[in-house]
Formats: sequence, structure tokens, C-alpha cells
Amino acid sequence: MNALSRKTRLKRFIELVWNEGKLDAADGYLAGAYTVVHDPGDPWEGMTLDPAGFKDRVRLSRAAFPDQQFDVQEMLADGGGVAMTWLWAGTHVGDLPGFPATGKPIHMSGATIYFFDDADRLTGHWQITDRLGVYQQLQRNLTASR
Amino acid sequence: MNALSRKTRLKRFIELVWNEGKLDAADGYLAGAYTVVHDPGDPWEGMTLDPAGFKDRVRLSRAAFPDQQFDVQEMLADGGGVAMTWLWAGTHVGDLPGFPATGKPIHMSGATIYFFDDADRLTGHWQITDRLGVYQQLQRNLTASR
Repeated sequence: MNALSRKTRLKRFIELVWNEGKLDAADGYLAGAYTVVHDPGDPWEGMTLDPAGFKDRVRLSRAAFPDQQFDVQEMLADGGGVAMTWLWAGTHVGDLPGFPATGKPIHMSGATIYFFDDADRLTGHWQITDRLGVYQQLQRNLTASR
Repeated sequence: MNALSRKTRLKRFIELVWNEGKLDAADGYLAGAYTVVHDPGDPWEGMTLDPAGFKDRVRLSRAAFPDQQFDVQEMLADGGGVAMTWLWAGTHVGDLPGFPATGKPIHMSGATIYFFDDADRLTGHWQITDRLGVYQQLQRNLTASR
């Protein structure tokens, strides 16, 4: 229940679940209800997910970018949250709506506040990603592949 | 030099400088060198500004949206930084490249880590804004005004 353990736990969660795709590992980190409080462009924005729903979210993201890697930049822990800035990279090998796979790398950056309960389990997030940057890369790759 | 005072100082800085446009108030908050470490789409990304340069940055932003208001959501202080999530709104009354003024409201959200020196002065930021959301609103307003 201290700031250090939350940062360590969050880093492991990102590594295991999002980077390595070990979806069952999520059970050790998630509260029963996880709310996507704010996340413009995210299909689950405003929704509260149970662990099965959360795993679907990870699965969908990894289907398009199976080698995706979050590279954590900074973590700030305060009150009930941990703020995390990150860089992200993945190879676009699965189709996305309007953007068939090109096999090319995509880069993204973002900032997220993760919320924790008293047992240090994740209860949700507030996130901004540079989705315009991603869109521009997808568009460029699509044009180049035509 | 404590976390509480940094949050209070940051909130006052946002209010005075960004919301009220009192540019000279920035001198009480800025270090001599302010680095825009990461801020996709920002014209000053990667640059280090002196206070005069910083004021130009605020001035340009407020020229297009003179009534702009940052509504601070959460602040997390840890180490040398304060993470801040925010909502923003402004009326588009000044021309932007490709987007002449429409007089319509624009909304945005973002997350920023502000960095401080030992004297609690701002030395820079790492920021993500939802610029795709802004672009979509500008595009929609432009189409509607034609």
C-alpha cells in the first residue's frame, strides 16, 4: 500500500499484460471493476469492465500489433493514483477499420493516470494518446502501399 | 519546496498565465530555461525557451482562443514533477493555418507532466493533447461554415 509498490506493480502489469500478452496475469492486478474514465477515441471510453472485458480490450489491441511494446518514461505516485508517461511501438500486422495491415512500424506516445483501490488493485484510468500521430502514420503507410 | 506548494503554484500559474493571459505573471513561476521535452504537434517541441519565448507561446495560443480556459482535473506530485490532467475550452475567434475563425467553441483534453527546479520554478513539460479531437472539430466547423 505504498507509492513505491504501486509503481513497481504498475510497471510489471504493463510488461506482463500489455507487452507480453499474458492475459491471465491481469487477474493479479485488476480490481473487479475497471473504469475507462477518459480516453478519447478508445472504444471503451466511459465503460466499466470486469476482468474478462479488460482482457478483450488487450486482446483487440494486440491483434493489430502483436509485438507492441510500451516503454515507460516517468511515473509519479500521489494519492490514489500513478501518472505514467510512455512511448509505444508496434508492427501493424493485423487489419484495422479502414487500414489494412502493412507490416510497417507505428509509433505513439501517451500519458495515463492509473487509479488504485486500497488493496493496490487497478480500478481504472484517465488517458490521452496522440491518436492524430498514429492516424497520420497509418494514412501515410496506406498511401505508400497503393 | 514541497509537493503541496508545487500543486498550488502550478494551479495559480495555469489560472493567471494561460486562463487570464497575464503574461508578466509568468516571471514569478518560470525558470530561466523552459524545455518543451515532448509535445507532439506543438511548434516548440524539443526547444528550450527563455521567459520571453514562453510568453510568445502563450500569446500565440491565446490569439486564436482569447477566452481559453484550462479546467484542471487531477494533480499528482512526486519527485521533481507534477502530473496534471485537464479539460480545455475556447472560442475559435482567431484564424489558424487552414482554419479561419468560425466563432464556435472548441474542446480539448490533455495530460501534462510539469518539471520543477529546487526553487519550485518550472523548467519544462512533457505533454500529450488530443489533437485529433481538435482537428475533427475544426474540420467540422469549417465544413459547416461553407
